[in-house]
Amino acid sequence: MGRRPGNPDTRNEIVTTARRLFAEAGYDKTSVRDIAAAAGVDPALIRHYFGSKAELFRSTVGWPIAPADLIARITGGDRGEIGARLTRVFLEAWERPESRAPLLAILRGAATHEESTALVRQLMQDQLYPQLAKPLQGPDTELRIDLAMAQLLGTAYLRHVLQVEPIASAPLDELVARVAPVITAHLGPGR
Amino acid sequence: MGRRPGNPDTRNEIVTTARRLFAEAGYDKTSVRDIAAAAGVDPALIRHYFGSKAELFRSTVGWPIAPADLIARITGGDRGEIGARLTRVFLEAWERPESRAPLLAILRGAATHEESTALVRQLMQDQLYPQLAKPLQGPDTELRIDLAMAQLLGTAYLRHVLQVEPIASAPLDELVARVAPVITAHLGPGR
Repeated sequence: MGRRPGNPDTRNEIVTTARRLFAEAGYDKTSVRDIAAAAGVDPALIRHYFGSKAELFRSTVGWPIAPADLIARITGGDRGEIGARLTRVFLEAWERPESRAPLLAILRGAATHEESTALVRQLMQDQLYPQLAKPLQGPDTELRIDLAMAQLLGTAYLRHVLQVEPIASAPLDELVARVAPVITAHLGPGR
Repeated sequence: MGRRPGNPDTRNEIVTTARRLFAEAGYDKTSVRDIAAAAGVDPALIRHYFGSKAELFRSTVGWPIAPADLIARITGGDRGEIGARLTRVFLEAWERPESRAPLLAILRGAATHEESTALVRQLMQDQLYPQLAKPLQGPDTELRIDLAMAQLLGTAYLRHVLQVEPIASAPLDELVARVAPVITAHLGPGR
């Protein structure tokens, strides 16, 4: 398989490499040139596929949060169980190294750089709210989603960024069992 | 009032300046020399008072989280109301500019630098757990405190770092009213 323009493998290789470098070094310290070198492609090819560095970042961070199959897992089925499914899908994503890396890149980037912050804000408002609000349908649904996401992001922050004990080593199933009722209470029963 | 060694005003001036610079530029990009220049003191005086940059950082971040009077406000009074008082004290601290700056420095620093992460971890384990565990006294108290802190830190992250709506503009009292029952549920009723 060559690394020719137009080859979908090349595009995936660039996204995978960018995700890893953004997670390791952060948004500011990672250049398009670094990513091109690590992926073994010409920087011009990255600009051809993605335009700016911000757009490349958006492509790498969009993936773990709102792909169609994850959203379907969360919103499909019994409406009263949306909170429990959101909890499991979200916390499980942080356990797998291949999705933990981009999620760490999001959390780290958004904590320090206005450009990353704006991207994450947009991701939540364009994807998460509409997808989750559809089955929930309350007048205060977006604030409820914010408070649920606060619990989930905070849990990931203490477990995977601060790595504070005992939450860093708690079994995933115990965490899900303790967090899911909180998420369900925040989101409400659905209508 | 001169800026002589041994003058408590000088020490406070250094802490206040360090807190501001750490919050604005982050831990890595702020040097002891920068802080000395901004505070109008000799770098040697900072080393005399604080030793290393890490110890200076610890002095600046320790302040908003666990001073004696805040802990007394949280743990004093009815045990069943500890969750409600923790929620209000924590979220109120983020509303005041003079405590928001150091809290942002903590959250930003801990997201990106292992040195800051270790300091925050130590702060939680040496100060927060013992102080809160005393009135709570369960076998799983520390995991309960972690999950409560996850909700509180996540709420501050969405409101003040991501500044995502509607949580960024929600009235403080409404936030406290929605978050306090969750914190109470996490912490349990006390014994």
